[in-house]
Amino acid sequence: MSGQVVLDAMGGDHGPAETVAGALLAHREHGVPVVLVGREPELRKELDRQGGELEVVHAPDAIPMTERGPAAALNPRSSLAIGCDLVRQGGAALVSAGSTGAIVASAVRRIGRAEQVLRPALAVALPTLGGGATVLVDAGATADPTPAMLAQFAELGTGYARSVLSVAEPLVGLLSIGSERGKGNRLARQAEQLLEQAPVRFAGPVEGTDVLSGLVEVIVTDGFTGNVVLKNIEGCVRTTLAMTAQAGIASPEALGEVARRYDPETHGGAALLGLRGPVIVAHGSSSAATIARACVVARTAAA
Amino acid sequence: MSGQVVLDAMGGDHGPAETVAGALLAHREHGVPVVLVGREPELRKELDRQGGELEVVHAPDAIPMTERGPAAALNPRSSLAIGCDLVRQGGAALVSAGSTGAIVASAVRRIGRAEQVLRPALAVALPTLGGGATVLVDAGATADPTPAMLAQFAELGTGYARSVLSVAEPLVGLLSIGSERGKGNRLARQAEQLLEQAPVRFAGPVEGTDVLSGLVEVIVTDGFTGNVVLKNIEGCVRTTLAMTAQAGIASPEALGEVARRYDPETHGGAALLGLRGPVIVAHGSSSAATIARACVVARTAAA
Repeated sequence: MSGQVVLDAMGGDHGPAETVAGALLAHREHGVPVVLVGREPELRKELDRQGGELEVVHAPDAIPMTERGPAAALNPRSSLAIGCDLVRQGGAALVSAGSTGAIVASAVRRIGRAEQVLRPALAVALPTLGGGATVLVDAGATADPTPAMLAQFAELGTGYARSVLSVAEPLVGLLSIGSERGKGNRLARQAEQLLEQAPVRFAGPVEGTDVLSGLVEVIVTDGFTGNVVLKNIEGCVRTTLAMTAQAGIASPEALGEVARRYDPETHGGAALLGLRGPVIVAHGSSSAATIARACVVARTAAA
Repeated sequence: MSGQVVLDAMGGDHGPAETVAGALLAHREHGVPVVLVGREPELRKELDRQGGELEVVHAPDAIPMTERGPAAALNPRSSLAIGCDLVRQGGAALVSAGSTGAIVASAVRRIGRAEQVLRPALAVALPTLGGGATVLVDAGATADPTPAMLAQFAELGTGYARSVLSVAEPLVGLLSIGSERGKGNRLARQAEQLLEQAPVRFAGPVEGTDVLSGLVEVIVTDGFTGNVVLKNIEGCVRTTLAMTAQAGIASPEALGEVARRYDPETHGGAALLGLRGPVIVAHGSSSAATIARACVVARTAAA
């Protein structure tokens, strides 16, 4: 599977019709070698219907979108589990639009954590005003991390920012409730002390206002706060633009350009860091175009 | 002090020049009976300079904006402490633009918690798209609450929503990382079980996308996540509108109308709930107009 992108074709809200369309798009327009994993008869039928040809690996089961966590990860016959197994063999990268909880649990169990990594973290690159981006990590993989895990997320996020933002020494901020040191909740205060010693360029605590300000290249937080923030941005951009349209300041169509910058459809995929193989988590509601973009991103991560 | 608004005239980034101007504005334009607390010579000088007349209660000390928490609350000679003491005597409401941490610590120590209340919570009413509002509680008073405290925040927030939103039975959502029950971090999962039994109209968990969607009237969360979300909204609105201006879709002036809706200057003040007397926390960077608005809000809370 070296250099290939393994797509969990059963994951996502829209099922194989959308994932297969995305895989074909990535293959045709970007030459990405995609392998579909899922119920072979369904996938063959979908490929026929869409007039395409791709390698298919059969998986008898699919994990429902509402399933999350360890239970789902225990079924070795799911498309997600078999996709993870293919990545574990080396050289391939996984893309799934399934439930984040199920992907994290399956990936940890079947691909395994990289050496010394305590827990994986989800990284999302958010566009900032200056045209750059800030990597938010953890955006939802580990809801209750320890301070030591947060310090590791900073290292994982630094590595990710280096590769996706091409910044040699990314500046790291710890998400907190004040920019002075020693504020925050227990977790943030303890993580702050570890971050002072960590092999990252630590800028100190940053506030919620700084997530999109471009002040730092990496923002570290626990997976609960990170996921709330990520979704809050989604809702806030939508509300702000709708209010702008409502006030008659600009047409909804004109505002679409800004909306797209923060649409989960656009950033396409979040990278699950800290594993023995690359995994890209696409939004559950991903369209074919988003799946295709995630496959393109995943190819660069495949060995 | 019955029916009066006690203003901590030394609190805030801009000092007495701005607080005195705000107090005079509230008094002249809205007839609010404001009592200034702070260094009397400075305040008298400021009143003279601005050509106004208000009652002044002398307090020899002022708490610097960087001071927070218990230490600051121990000084009984600060304007904040003396302001709290006036509220404790009954009938008055306090307004302070000082550091939130210092206000919470002083208010708990000097005004005291209402019966059975474990910890205070900060409530902010955020405008939603439909023209209504959602009360976010706790927006930063208690960074590490227990599940029982979160359940109380729901009750406090319900009472606040009843009075400021005039909704008889406000719907309460628990901020989490999935709308299915049983998700979230440890705190959210445990709080969810208590909320099922609490005397509130509990709608279940809600996600970050729902903070401004108007789905519920009250959103409950811990003070760490709540403060991060509040400030994230501030930053996100600013970034979205700046990107809209940058893309040439609308002028920054035209967009100002939307910006003002989420400007902390506009919502004026957050209410510190769960105490034996009313306390309004104004943004540290409050202008005279914001101080005035907070004083108007405080008057309705004063007995």
